[in-house]
Amino acid sequence: MADELDALLKHPGEWLRGVGPVADIVMSSRIRLARNLEKIPFATRATDESQAKVLTLVKEALGRVPSLERALFLELGGLTEVDRQFLVERHLVSREHVVNPEHKAVVIGEGEAISIMVNEEDHLRIQVLQSGLSLPEAWAMMDTLDDELSQALPYAFSPEWGYLTCCPTNVGTGMRGSVMLHLPALVITKQINKVLHAITKLGLTARGFYGEGTEATGNFFQISNQVALGRSEDELVENLQRIMKQVIENEQSARQTLLSSGRVQLEDRLWRAYGLLKHARTMSSVETLDLLSAVRLGVDLGLMANGAAPAGGNGLDRTAVNELFLYSQPAHLQKLEGKALSVQERDAKRAELIRKRLGAKQ
Amino acid sequence: MADELDALLKHPGEWLRGVGPVADIVMSSRIRLARNLEKIPFATRATDESQAKVLTLVKEALGRVPSLERALFLELGGLTEVDRQFLVERHLVSREHVVNPEHKAVVIGEGEAISIMVNEEDHLRIQVLQSGLSLPEAWAMMDTLDDELSQALPYAFSPEWGYLTCCPTNVGTGMRGSVMLHLPALVITKQINKVLHAITKLGLTARGFYGEGTEATGNFFQISNQVALGRSEDELVENLQRIMKQVIENEQSARQTLLSSGRVQLEDRLWRAYGLLKHARTMSSVETLDLLSAVRLGVDLGLMANGAAPAGGNGLDRTAVNELFLYSQPAHLQKLEGKALSVQERDAKRAELIRKRLGAKQ
Repeated sequence: MADELDALLKHPGEWLRGVGPVADIVMSSRIRLARNLEKIPFATRATDESQAKVLTLVKEALGRVPSLERALFLELGGLTEVDRQFLVERHLVSREHVVNPEHKAVVIGEGEAISIMVNEEDHLRIQVLQSGLSLPEAWAMMDTLDDELSQALPYAFSPEWGYLTCCPTNVGTGMRGSVMLHLPALVITKQINKVLHAITKLGLTARGFYGEGTEATGNFFQISNQVALGRSEDELVENLQRIMKQVIENEQSARQTLLSSGRVQLEDRLWRAYGLLKHARTMSSVETLDLLSAVRLGVDLGLMANGAAPAGGNGLDRTAVNELFLYSQPAHLQKLEGKALSVQERDAKRAELIRKRLGAKQ
Repeated sequence: MADELDALLKHPGEWLRGVGPVADIVMSSRIRLARNLEKIPFATRATDESQAKVLTLVKEALGRVPSLERALFLELGGLTEVDRQFLVERHLVSREHVVNPEHKAVVIGEGEAISIMVNEEDHLRIQVLQSGLSLPEAWAMMDTLDDELSQALPYAFSPEWGYLTCCPTNVGTGMRGSVMLHLPALVITKQINKVLHAITKLGLTARGFYGEGTEATGNFFQISNQVALGRSEDELVENLQRIMKQVIENEQSARQTLLSSGRVQLEDRLWRAYGLLKHARTMSSVETLDLLSAVRLGVDLGLMANGAAPAGGNGLDRTAVNELFLYSQPAHLQKLEGKALSVQERDAKRAELIRKRLGAKQ
């Protein structure tokens, strides 16, 4: 198992590639489908036997799904705590999925654009992630995958209600679209609450960096559609993409405001964050996210590119900063070190990793 | 006038040379004498005419004082506001001395080890400054200077009371000894109040960076004797030097405590200060003092010397840090720029100066 995860460790994965449309504001676009298998109890009534059966059915079906060629099938029960946390940090599984790992699994497609949680709230939680604002592209990939999966596995489907899911909010298309936005300028200019309020009125939900129930650390907001019933997938995707464009315009406008009035204060804030990242000797993951958020804003605004890192080195570009978001997290740090670390050890190793990646000499 | 001050601007002056005994903790040792001229009204009863007479007497006496060969005689009324503040920042005059500059002057000896305020609270406030813990050396220099001055000027002296001064606390020897200590470890370990309390019980006074009535910014404490009557100058100097050695031992012990328990936290604090100094775009003088204090501690503990600055460059040594303490102050900044600057402009220029001196590339 560990070998397969070590291979993942070497690359940041799809959602942190920092490419795609509007990649300066949109980290990633995600489409998630909830699917269940017919004639097998749903999660709320599941037994050890029924869950084991789901695992077996999914595992043996993978060979018949072209999109999942060379995919990994990992049973969470066979992983260490650190490895499970590692999957959460890569956004391949939800935090809930690793709480009780027995009879749970994850399927990870090549490049991590596709992942499937098995025996989470639904038998299958299928996810497609793409860099940047790419909901239609993610949906197209998902549509193909879903067709292939439905050939290989017997989905629970009602002609009247659509796809049946464990939680009523997912019944119908079983689809949720979400977008991870980096909105530092809306936060700095204190417009963020107004924007989030407007989003909520449009039927969308804003969450933190790690999804449901998490804080908006590092100025990241995961915004998703809430209602899955009564609209087609295309409508949902189109609606979400349209609203996201408005939010992006708000953030772009706030960035211009910061640049035109109070540029010195803005640059000061961003460079101070850089100075702390480059020189601190111990740093929590929450502080890291906040400081990296500032540096990412600086990079995205073109304020920090020149001379900040040694020539030809591991400098300040969006991909480098995105990688730091990932590798500075607890499980990633521990996997890089090859052993379990206490909180204090992690905070020191985190600071060391960041210093090195930013090209500090000390 | 400006030309003469521009010459001073090029060098940091005696008290910031960063040499002498225990220079890692003691910035400077100062001996000050209060002297008045006989048959001329003291400050509380002075008139324009009497003050003008003092100025004339002092100016024409300088040629007969060997220790003041090549000394500057500057009338404060002829200086700009910035130039007067510049003298305060160099600790050549008190803050009080520049409030109403008419009929006031300062004599500045070569290298700034000697300065004499004319028409401050007393007709003459004579000061000798030396780097490090050097009270006996400063007193020896002062003793010579005082002898020479008494030959050239008619001192007001009572066989019963000794030298007569405007404020009764100075009557007698008219002497005050003081030492500028950098006590960051006592502050960090929260022992400073206990130490200052003990000092007060021993008849000493602790003041801030700019003397009477100022805050202890940057962890600098100016400690001086309070009672001048009834003891010889040698006794006062010896007593102060002895108590200072105890305070220094306290600070040294606190530094060792920080190094042995919580080294990572200490290094983190110092390097974060360095990171902010090296990258900020705007910085107040108070924040600068606090951050420089941390960096000075790091340099003094040998924690920050290697690799922090470009090879062969304007790196991190005590003298460089001491110079930043001086040159980052408002009047020094404005004189370096050659023009008056608003607070915002100063804060930006200060950050720029510090960045450059610390060898930042941006």
